[in-house]
Amino acid sequence: MKTRVFVTLKNGVLDPQGKAIHHALEGLGFKGVNDVRAGRLIEIDHEPGLSQTELEDMCRKLLANMVIENFEIEQKG
Amino acid sequence: MKTRVFVTLKNGVLDPQGKAIHHALEGLGFKGVNDVRAGRLIEIDHEPGLSQTELEDMCRKLLANMVIENFEIEQKG
Repeated sequence: MKTRVFVTLKNGVLDPQGKAIHHALEGLGFKGVNDVRAGRLIEIDHEPGLSQTELEDMCRKLLANMVIENFEIEQKG
Repeated sequence: MKTRVFVTLKNGVLDPQGKAIHHALEGLGFKGVNDVRAGRLIEIDHEPGLSQTELEDMCRKLLANMVIENFEIEQKG
């Protein structure tokens, strides 16, 4: 069973990586981009027994820094 | 308009970051995890005029390294 965890910076937290990507896109001639935010994607392949609570626990304890980041869990089945 | 780009390592490409996360999860006492792969998430806020082709172009030219990575584009509206 596969689960995807998306870790994104909270609103208001500066994102130099996103800024750099935005700048590079403009340098390459792409127009119409207003903002870019960079985050992390973590794909977890696990036994079906692993509960949503355990996954949230993993995020809180290891995968995301709850001070500056949010996480989203997407079960892929 | 927001679009999410998921950049993941191709199958067979070694992923030391994913391995480290997997190992750390086991160290924290989480059981039932078979494998972890780490990737990147890029959120692009753009004008509605930006086409799918342009987004794919961005991925190929800047966001993903097509030799070792795949990308997925998800329009969020």
